[in-house]
Amino acid sequence: MSSPRTELVYGMHVVGALLRRDPERIVRIYLQRGRSDARAAQIEQLARAAGRALERIDAQRLASRLGEVVHQGVAAEVLPLAPWHEERLLGAVTATRDPLLLALDGIQDPHNLGACLRTADACGVLAVIVPRDRAAPLNATARKSASGAAETTPVVTVTNLARALMQLKEAGLWIVGAEADAPQSAAQVDLTGPRVLVLGAEGRGLRALTRRHCDWLARLPARGAVESLNVSVAAGMLLYEALRQRDASRAP
Amino acid sequence: MSSPRTELVYGMHVVGALLRRDPERIVRIYLQRGRSDARAAQIEQLARAAGRALERIDAQRLASRLGEVVHQGVAAEVLPLAPWHEERLLGAVTATRDPLLLALDGIQDPHNLGACLRTADACGVLAVIVPRDRAAPLNATARKSASGAAETTPVVTVTNLARALMQLKEAGLWIVGAEADAPQSAAQVDLTGPRVLVLGAEGRGLRALTRRHCDWLARLPARGAVESLNVSVAAGMLLYEALRQRDASRAP
Repeated sequence: MSSPRTELVYGMHVVGALLRRDPERIVRIYLQRGRSDARAAQIEQLARAAGRALERIDAQRLASRLGEVVHQGVAAEVLPLAPWHEERLLGAVTATRDPLLLALDGIQDPHNLGACLRTADACGVLAVIVPRDRAAPLNATARKSASGAAETTPVVTVTNLARALMQLKEAGLWIVGAEADAPQSAAQVDLTGPRVLVLGAEGRGLRALTRRHCDWLARLPARGAVESLNVSVAAGMLLYEALRQRDASRAP
Repeated sequence: MSSPRTELVYGMHVVGALLRRDPERIVRIYLQRGRSDARAAQIEQLARAAGRALERIDAQRLASRLGEVVHQGVAAEVLPLAPWHEERLLGAVTATRDPLLLALDGIQDPHNLGACLRTADACGVLAVIVPRDRAAPLNATARKSASGAAETTPVVTVTNLARALMQLKEAGLWIVGAEADAPQSAAQVDLTGPRVLVLGAEGRGLRALTRRHCDWLARLPARGAVESLNVSVAAGMLLYEALRQRDASRAP
C-alpha cells in the first residue's frame, strides 16, 4: 500500500487539507468502502478536481494498514514533505506577515519531535527548526507521533542553530526562549510580531549559546513537584500564548 | 530496590517536594555516591529532619534501576499516592480557595493519562478526575509517562462522571469543557474562580452527556491540517490559560 518513498496519512481533515494545498504530493487516496456521507463525497470531489487516483478499500484492510487510529475511513499515500533548506526558510519568512516559528534545541526523543510537530501544525506555525546534530531524526517514530503533521509542517534542519537564529534576527524576527525561571511570564513577553519560539530539552533547558541569542526569555507554569513540563506541552502553552496575544491585538 | 507495593520517583525537585509535603510515604531515599552539592545536602537535611532512611548508592546502580531519565542523582521509594474517593475530593474542594480540577472524559491511552497528570501537576491542579469505565488505568505505563506526577497529583476515579460533575457544581464549581468548534475561545471564558476543566478523547471529543453538564465550552487552537491536539497538550493550553487569567486577576 505504501512504498518506502511514500508515507501514509489519514483522517478527513489532513487528507482534505493536502488535496487543497499540495495535491501533487498525493500518490493515491484510499476511501473506505461503504462511506457515502458528505465528508467522503467532498474527498471524492477534491480528488477528482485535482486528478488524483482514489481507490475504495475494505474497512478491515484500511484498519490493518493503519493500526489503531481514528482514520475516519480515509487515508492517502503521499510523497514526504521535502525538508526546507535555510534559504527557503528565509524566503518564506520574508513573504509572511508576522511569521511564527518554533525552534527545538537538543530534543533527542523522536516521540517528542513528532508531538511538537503536531502541536506546531495545530497552531499554524510556518516551520519548525531543528539542529542537525544531537537532535531526534524525523524518522517513522516521529512521523507517527506527529499524526500526519510531519507531512504538512515543514522541518528545517540547520547545521548551526545559533547561526540560524542570528540570520532570522537579521530578517526581522525576535527570538523568545522558554525558561523555567525567567523573570517574565510568557504573558508578559510580546509575542505578536515576527517571532521564533525556542524550546530546550526537558530537564536541561536551553543550551548556553542558544540562550545568548534570545531577545527575551519567557516563563511557563512550574507549580508542581515534577521538574519540568513535557516539551510538546511547553511548546503548546507558548504557542497558545502567542496566538492569544495575536487574536487580542487584532480585536476591535 | 522497590517492592511491588512501592513506586520509585526521582529528581531533586520531586523527592524534595515529597519530603516536605508527605514524608510518611517515603520508605527510603537513594542518593548517588559522590554527590555533595547544595541540593544533595538539602535532601540529606530534609530526610534527617523527617526521620527517613537515606542510602548512598553508586551512579551505575541508580541508572540501571531508573533507566534513561534525568534523575539528578536522587530517587525515593515511596508508597503509592492513595486514590481519593469522591467524599475526599468534595472535602478538599470545599477547603481550597478557587480550586482548579481537571476531568478526563474517555481517555483510553495510559501514556495520555500519564502526560495529563504531569501537566496537571505542573499547573498546580488539586486533583484529576477520571471515570472508572472505558478509561485508561493508572498502571505502570501511565506512571512512567507522568514522570513522578502520579505520586503527587491525586487521581479520583468516579463511577459516573456526569454525576460527579453535578456534585461539583453543587459545591460551587463551574464546569468548562474544551471543544474544537466552541464559539468562545478559552481566553473568552472566565477561568478565574472554582473550575473543573474537562477534556475529551482525541478525535471524539466530549461525550454528549458530559457536554450537557458543561457551563461553558472553550475553543483551543486548531489552525492546522491535523484533526486535533494531543489531549495532554490541549490540557496544557487550557490550564495555562486558567493560570494566566488567575495571575492577571491578582495583579495590582
